[in-house]
Amino acid sequence: MGEVRVINVNMGIFEKNDSVAAVNREKLRAEKTFMINLMASPGAGKTTTLLKTIELLPKDMKIGVMEADIDATIDAEKINAAGVRSIQVHTNGNCAMDAEMTRQALEEFETSDLDLLVMENVGNLVCPAETDTGSSINVAILSIPEGDDKPLKYPLMFQICHCVLINKIDTREYFDFDDAAAVERIKFCNPEAEVFFICAKTGEGMGAWVEWLRQRMAEWTR
Amino acid sequence: MGEVRVINVNMGIFEKNDSVAAVNREKLRAEKTFMINLMASPGAGKTTTLLKTIELLPKDMKIGVMEADIDATIDAEKINAAGVRSIQVHTNGNCAMDAEMTRQALEEFETSDLDLLVMENVGNLVCPAETDTGSSINVAILSIPEGDDKPLKYPLMFQICHCVLINKIDTREYFDFDDAAAVERIKFCNPEAEVFFICAKTGEGMGAWVEWLRQRMAEWTR
Repeated sequence: MGEVRVINVNMGIFEKNDSVAAVNREKLRAEKTFMINLMASPGAGKTTTLLKTIELLPKDMKIGVMEADIDATIDAEKINAAGVRSIQVHTNGNCAMDAEMTRQALEEFETSDLDLLVMENVGNLVCPAETDTGSSINVAILSIPEGDDKPLKYPLMFQICHCVLINKIDTREYFDFDDAAAVERIKFCNPEAEVFFICAKTGEGMGAWVEWLRQRMAEWTR
Repeated sequence: MGEVRVINVNMGIFEKNDSVAAVNREKLRAEKTFMINLMASPGAGKTTTLLKTIELLPKDMKIGVMEADIDATIDAEKINAAGVRSIQVHTNGNCAMDAEMTRQALEEFETSDLDLLVMENVGNLVCPAETDTGSSINVAILSIPEGDDKPLKYPLMFQICHCVLINKIDTREYFDFDDAAAVERIKFCNPEAEVFFICAKTGEGMGAWVEWLRQRMAEWTR
């Protein structure tokens, strides 16, 4: 796949985030490209979940990945190594992608032939929740080692997510994580959020999430 | 210890963060109160590390804890339950404490009789690194489940930290975490950073960190 491309994007100067997000969303809808804004704490398993998800999707689905980070290119390299088209977006120190940054990245990346575009946002449970990017859906990953109390502390993230993946369930015995409490706290933030328990490393529970995703994609591009 | 006190603080309007931080630092130095700005991703184990650290410090040391979160009071409740004076600071949606927010919290908390004040910052590897609070030292926790690549992705956090605690070493067998690579990457960001491997849950490795902390406290209040 050659070298990783790096794009440096800058935050929108004007307070027009929602209108730029709407433009991004319409552009993607017109192109029939479904975009996921994938968010989580650092180290929750975004890249691993993404790679396993791609593995389970049909081989003829055209997929692209935008890796947003403050620095480094290791995530885009990993995705590239798996044979998936990807670019690295550097956020110029910003703690999340906003709609204008996403617009710049979409322009560079050329998304028109893609069925699915995944934007892996900066690892952070606060800032990415505050700015709509224009994605078709928002997905958050919460990993078992982080604890079941995170929806209480970062409620906005769970409010704006259509789906929450509870990852690293293979490590349950090491951590005090109350599954029912976690689900209850997520549903308190957003009663309509779908919750799946997964282990991206082993693939456990990934089938149900991928099935749900494919249904959302089918509805969206209908 | 009674009910948890909650303080709502607002971000500084003026771009004077560094000068407000300097005022905070001088005030604390005059009071001989040593302040730690404790930072980490959500779920890295800040509260557990703090509780274990307090347990290992001399019983006659006067300690206070400020728990900064966007929402909830569970951390301050945990600290309170352990018999340690604590308050919950709500950041009004902000992703980190800045110097002005810290000044407001210090004013409310009355720190003059404290030997040690720990501010547990919002769980985030980006924003808290950007604003000096006036703390005596900055300490970051990186947990094994997050991965050894975090210093590459969030370099500023590791640049500004005097000490990095690599936590949850009891879970090593579950995660691919390269100790030497992590230390090398931290030292690349900041050659003078001290690194300790700990398990706050079991207490493993905590002695060396607490010893180092006591030395810093002794030097600072000399």
